[in-house]
Amino acid sequence: MNNKNAMDLKELVYKTRSFRRFDESYHIDLKVLEGLVDLARMSASAANRQPLKYLLFNTTEFCQRIFPSIAWAAYLKDWYGPDSGERPSAYIIILGDKSITETFSFDPGIAAQSIMLGATEEGLGGCMIGSIKREALRNDLRIPEKFEIILILALGKPAEKIFIDEIKDDDVKYWRDDQQNHHVPKRPLKELILKGYLIG
Amino acid sequence: MNNKNAMDLKELVYKTRSFRRFDESYHIDLKVLEGLVDLARMSASAANRQPLKYLLFNTTEFCQRIFPSIAWAAYLKDWYGPDSGERPSAYIIILGDKSITETFSFDPGIAAQSIMLGATEEGLGGCMIGSIKREALRNDLRIPEKFEIILILALGKPAEKIFIDEIKDDDVKYWRDDQQNHHVPKRPLKELILKGYLIG
Repeated sequence: MNNKNAMDLKELVYKTRSFRRFDESYHIDLKVLEGLVDLARMSASAANRQPLKYLLFNTTEFCQRIFPSIAWAAYLKDWYGPDSGERPSAYIIILGDKSITETFSFDPGIAAQSIMLGATEEGLGGCMIGSIKREALRNDLRIPEKFEIILILALGKPAEKIFIDEIKDDDVKYWRDDQQNHHVPKRPLKELILKGYLIG
Repeated sequence: MNNKNAMDLKELVYKTRSFRRFDESYHIDLKVLEGLVDLARMSASAANRQPLKYLLFNTTEFCQRIFPSIAWAAYLKDWYGPDSGERPSAYIIILGDKSITETFSFDPGIAAQSIMLGATEEGLGGCMIGSIKREALRNDLRIPEKFEIILILALGKPAEKIFIDEIKDDDVKYWRDDQQNHHVPKRPLKELILKGYLIG
């Protein structure tokens, strides 16, 4: 993978937001998707089992078939997902190979994070989606029962702005402002790092 | 966090191996650990709940207390973990706050990967450890029941070489050679990317 956008990891992590609206006309090359899977391949795996498999889609036909299997943005009650023209132009479906193990441990999150960081570096963005109509997707794509459908990574050229806000009143719900910018409340560091009761 | 070792993500991911032997004399500043948690803080969280909490340890006393709670390297049958002098010099314990949610989804893997990549950028390394004597650790550190003990990230200045090998005969077990170098067999990309049965 070429380093198209050299940045340190902090910048990369901060830029890796959950994007849900894209320039659907932007084509993502299969080589790019393969490069992202290679990042997942080289990431940690419980007991080194490496039980994850990947399905890659970058064609209009398959993107249209996968799109209806996804539940988008539960907190946005009047929004049912990106309109035509703003939809992802590629998907990576992460499967768990049950012939290797029945428990996939932390592997899917580790792999997904490597992929999404890699997407940002490529000037892309996307969203990890666990809310999936799994049986419909399995039937449509003829995914054998030996594979558990774990996560869908929707990818595209982002076409929305996302702002990180300080959390207020413990309300974690993301929201959209008048300009349709997306806002995400994040807990401050001092709330996440525990101190105090361990001494003694 | 300063970008001490500028590299693209592919290099960073490839260098982020599971290290288990360290220069124990190397001190890791608390600020570095806080920077790593900030990377986790800004990573994706299911429904944006952000239920993970973090305990940070960088003192000899606490490192000695945490070390016995860890089961090291299951595949190395004659090796029970790093000797004194080669042990981690910091730990990040990832907890799940059950007062926020009972299910932590993919958050721990996502967060752990951000942290371990950040450690590599800092010239550090380590190992994600899920095999933990949880009750002993909970009692010793007085971790309240409302927190699930999810993962321990052992961190230090790596003092071993790790080689990635092509997998043979589907044997995923890592091993050590005569020079005590660590070898990790990885599945090839073509085995991970599924093709063929989806058409029609």
